[in-house]
This record gives sequence, structure tokens and C-alpha cells, in this order.
Amino acid sequence: MPVAELIPLGTASAIPTRERHLSAFALRRDGRLLLFDCGEGTQYRLRDAGLSRAKLDAIFLTHFHGDHLYGLFGLLSTLALLERTAPLTIVSPTGLCEMLRALPGLAPDAHPFELRFVELNEGFGHAVVYETDAYTVEARPLDHRVFAAGYRYQEKARPGKIDGEGARAAGIREGWQYETLRRGEPVTLADGRVVRPEGLVGPARPGASFAYVLDTRPCRGGEKLAAGVDLLVHEATFTEAHRDRAYETGHSTAQQAATVARKAAAKRLLLTHFSSRYGELAPLVEEARGVFPHAEAAAELRAYTLTEAVSAAPSMPA
Amino acid sequence: MPVAELIPLGTASAIPTRERHLSAFALRRDGRLLLFDCGEGTQYRLRDAGLSRAKLDAIFLTHFHGDHLYGLFGLLSTLALLERTAPLTIVSPTGLCEMLRALPGLAPDAHPFELRFVELNEGFGHAVVYETDAYTVEARPLDHRVFAAGYRYQEKARPGKIDGEGARAAGIREGWQYETLRRGEPVTLADGRVVRPEGLVGPARPGASFAYVLDTRPCRGGEKLAAGVDLLVHEATFTEAHRDRAYETGHSTAQQAATVARKAAAKRLLLTHFSSRYGELAPLVEEARGVFPHAEAAAELRAYTLTEAVSAAPSMPA
Repeated sequence: MPVAELIPLGTASAIPTRERHLSAFALRRDGRLLLFDCGEGTQYRLRDAGLSRAKLDAIFLTHFHGDHLYGLFGLLSTLALLERTAPLTIVSPTGLCEMLRALPGLAPDAHPFELRFVELNEGFGHAVVYETDAYTVEARPLDHRVFAAGYRYQEKARPGKIDGEGARAAGIREGWQYETLRRGEPVTLADGRVVRPEGLVGPARPGASFAYVLDTRPCRGGEKLAAGVDLLVHEATFTEAHRDRAYETGHSTAQQAATVARKAAAKRLLLTHFSSRYGELAPLVEEARGVFPHAEAAAELRAYTLTEAVSAAPSMPA
Repeated sequence: MPVAELIPLGTASAIPTRERHLSAFALRRDGRLLLFDCGEGTQYRLRDAGLSRAKLDAIFLTHFHGDHLYGLFGLLSTLALLERTAPLTIVSPTGLCEMLRALPGLAPDAHPFELRFVELNEGFGHAVVYETDAYTVEARPLDHRVFAAGYRYQEKARPGKIDGEGARAAGIREGWQYETLRRGEPVTLADGRVVRPEGLVGPARPGASFAYVLDTRPCRGGEKLAAGVDLLVHEATFTEAHRDRAYETGHSTAQQAATVARKAAAKRLLLTHFSSRYGELAPLVEEARGVFPHAEAAAELRAYTLTEAVSAAPSMPA
């Protein structure tokens, strides 16, 4: 099974700092890439991460604030210059296609490769916005100053494991007979005996998942996206000391992000979208761990395996 | 006299490389900044150069290709978040104000500080687009695939030097009497004698200057902007080996850039806007020096004093 890795490219909110770049997260799986948000400089950060822009299949934008969006134009220009021909899906709030029309060289009808727009209307409830054989991406509305959507990447469940010993005893061989049982269908052996999957095939194994929840106040949409997820990326723009400011500006505190993770029974929490007022992130991580122990601050350019085992109790802030 | 320095922030064409960023040059003078072009990532590069975004007075855009433009949106957003209140002048081809209207949070009428647009119409001949007590910036059309303008920064001429010995002998004292002579006016001494400036004040000294000529084929507009300039920044996207490709795409070779510098009697030439095909820039510099010895490749984040003395004959490529 290909292993999915999430690579934070930018973890700053609003204004980049010397250490942190504007919002963008890349998901690498089976040699291909998905991109969540596309702040200014994302094409540079893909290069810094050693990720090939040519491998990009889809881009998911949460909302139309510049720090999540303004890297898209240069990235699309560069993909055109690199002579891309494969289509590219872009999921976003409604209005992106129209916006690109106003920018030189980006008019979608004249673009050198196909742009497949999936635009979410304000007021939508829930949508599967992208799907392959291996996974789906769904969207739900969040609670920000402007219309924003969060996303959940969910690999499809894998068939259960076959009890090898039991199968051999029943006369089943690997290959098409295994495949048939895995699909939940009976196998007819050469001697006419019928072997049913029940008892030989274990329960389906859930696929890896991650949720991308920013920018938002803590909200139901975020909790639903994060339900039981392997890895929750949730914004934590502020600490509790600025809880009022977080509410006013449509953001979350680290404690609120951790509360969403706990309510949703997520396995791990990565905090991101840090206000430029925080040099060190330890106060945010400590605050989150008070509520949800498996919390850390997303580190730019580090690759996080979605299904990485969590230790019983992390001992110190990142 | 404040000394003006030019700091290249990005010297790549079209696609950034690991070493080179998209087009932008900052001019620092007397604690203030001008910006020429604003490719994606310019706000990061200002920070990398240790230049304060708050000191920015005006931005000059040559044309509407993304690699010269797509850093503007994020920079304007950041200036707004930094609570700028001072007006900002933006000089560009016609259409920028309209373009910003299509982008979230950048509608000029609702912008938190005043944007003063100076828009150049295709077909314009020559315009002074910005002026202070100390300098002017003029624009002339270039010859690119789309409408493009080049710029010349010109400090105002300074009065000639006073012949101190002669002035003393004539009974003139420093202070208002010096100032009067420098203005070209006579001074009436206490004893009624009139001292005229002729013979005591040397010729006016020309102000420092630089020309910013990209993107373009070699052209008359570029030559005029570069006439006698202290420092000419001229694009050199290719070497002569790709002269045809340069012509087709509206660009210059290093040799052509050097020929403009020679015809214009510029004092020094900085090459920029290098195609990503060139890792090492020595071939471009060598080619230029065959025509114009005082040529070098613009080095990102190095500060070039406009009036830096040129050595008799540079010995090796940068």
C-alpha cells in the first residue's frame, strides 16, 4: 500500500515571518501530490521540499484570503511554462474561475492545460469534491470571517486480512482465489467445493485519513471533518490569552483546536497558522496538550506519515 | 548627500530556480524604498534583504506577466495588515486598478491606505511618472510580447562646488552667501560690493541615475532610458546561441544588452532576468564583456551603489 505523507509548506498566518511561510500543505501519495491552500511562495516551497510541481493532481483552497490564495497565480503560470498538459482540479469557494479571468495569462478558457473547477457555494452542507480509486476528499463549511471550507482526505477501506492458515486448510491458494474472498465472494474449488469468505477474511481495514481545518473558529464542520481522523491539521492562530481576538477575527486558539481534536477522537493533532506574534511555539503546544496530548506544532518541510504510531504520552513540547 | 543603492531581490525569468527568484529590484535612498517589479515572493525577499516594507514609497511595474507582478497582491495585503496609512504610488501599464478590483481584499476604493495609480497607456511616448525634491522617475515604452515600460531613476543635478579660496578672497563667507552663489545669484556684501557667482561656482554636478530595462528586445526606448546612466539594469534572458528564441519571445541576449549599454554610454551594466536553463552565469557575462567591459550579473541581495567607481578593466566574469 502506498503510504501518504503530509508536508507542511507554510504555517504562518497573514504575515510571513523569517521562519514561517504562508499557508500551504502538500499531501504526497504514490508519487502524486495534492495541495491544500496555496499562499504566496508555494511554488518556491514545493521546490524547497523537493516536491515536483509536475506531480500535482488537485489543489484545495479553503477561502479567499490572500495568505491562502496568492501563490496560486504564479504556480499556474509556472505549470503552463513547464508545458503541463494534464488537467488540474481546483476546489475552492465560488468565484475562482471568474477571478482568474481578470488576471493576465490565466483566463481559464485560453489556459494551455485544462483547469477543472469545483466551486463550493456559501451555504453548502457537505460535498465529496474529489475522488480516485484510492481515496476521496470531502468538504464541509467552516466558521470564518468570509466563507471558508475545510477538507478531509480519506483513503478507501482496504479488504480485511485473510487467515492464511485457515485458507490453506480450506484448499484456497493465493492469487485470484484470495482476491475473490477479499471482495467478499465465495470461491468454487476444482473439486466443486464452495469456500465462503466468512471466517477466513478479517474485518475491512479503514484507510488513512487527515482533515485540514482552517481558517475557522472551532465549529461543527471542523469536528465532523476530523471525526476519528489519523491526523488533524487545525489552525491555532492564538493562545487562550487572545481568545477574544481569535473569536473576533474568526480564528481558533490552541486550546480550542485541541478540544476539536478531543471531541472528534482524532488520533493526532498538528497545529498551524500561527500568528506572527509567536516566535517560539511551545506555549501553543503546551496549551493544546493540556486538552489533547498528541498535539504538536506543524514543522515546515517535515514529512508526517498519516498513520504514524502515537506514543502513549508525549513528554515535551515541540 | 544620501547615497542610493540598488538591491536585486530576484533575477530569474519566468520560472524561479533554487538560486534565483522572480523579478524585483529595490532602490534604497535616504531610508526610503522604491521597488521595480514585484514577482511572487517579493515580500519574502524584502525581508531576506533586511529592507523594511514600511519604507516603501512607490512601486514601478514594467508589464503584466506574472513573474513581474504576482508578488504585488501579497505585498499589498501585508502592508494593509501592518496598518500602513501612508499613500503608496503604483506605476504600471493600464489595467492594474481594475485587476485589483477582482481580487479579494484588494479593491482600491476599500483599501485601508491610499493607492495612487499612475497607469501608462500603450502607445505613450515618454512620461515623468514620479517626482520628489531629490529625483524623478521617467518611463518609456519597451519592445516586448505585451505592452511593457522601462524606467529611469534620475537624481536632480546638484549645484557646482564653490572655489573656497576664491570666495574667501572676494569676501564671501559660508552659509547664506554660499547658498546664494550656488543658486546662481549675486551676493551684496556689507560694504556694498556685489560678488557674482561666475568664476566662483563650478558646473552643476549631475545626479546619480539608473535605468531598469526589462522585459524587452533591444530597443530605442531602452537606449534612451540608459543614456549616460550610472547603472543600467538590462535583461539578458539568453546568450547569442538563443538569439532567435530571444527575438521570438521578446527578450534580449547578453550581447544585445551590452550593445545597448555601449550605445547609450552607460557607465556600468547589470545583467538580469536569466533563463532557468543557465546554472552558471559566466557565459552571459563573458558575452556581454566582449562588447561592454563593465558588465556583471546582478547578484541577489547584494547592494550596488549607483555611483560606485568602475575599475579600468574588470578582469574576470562574476
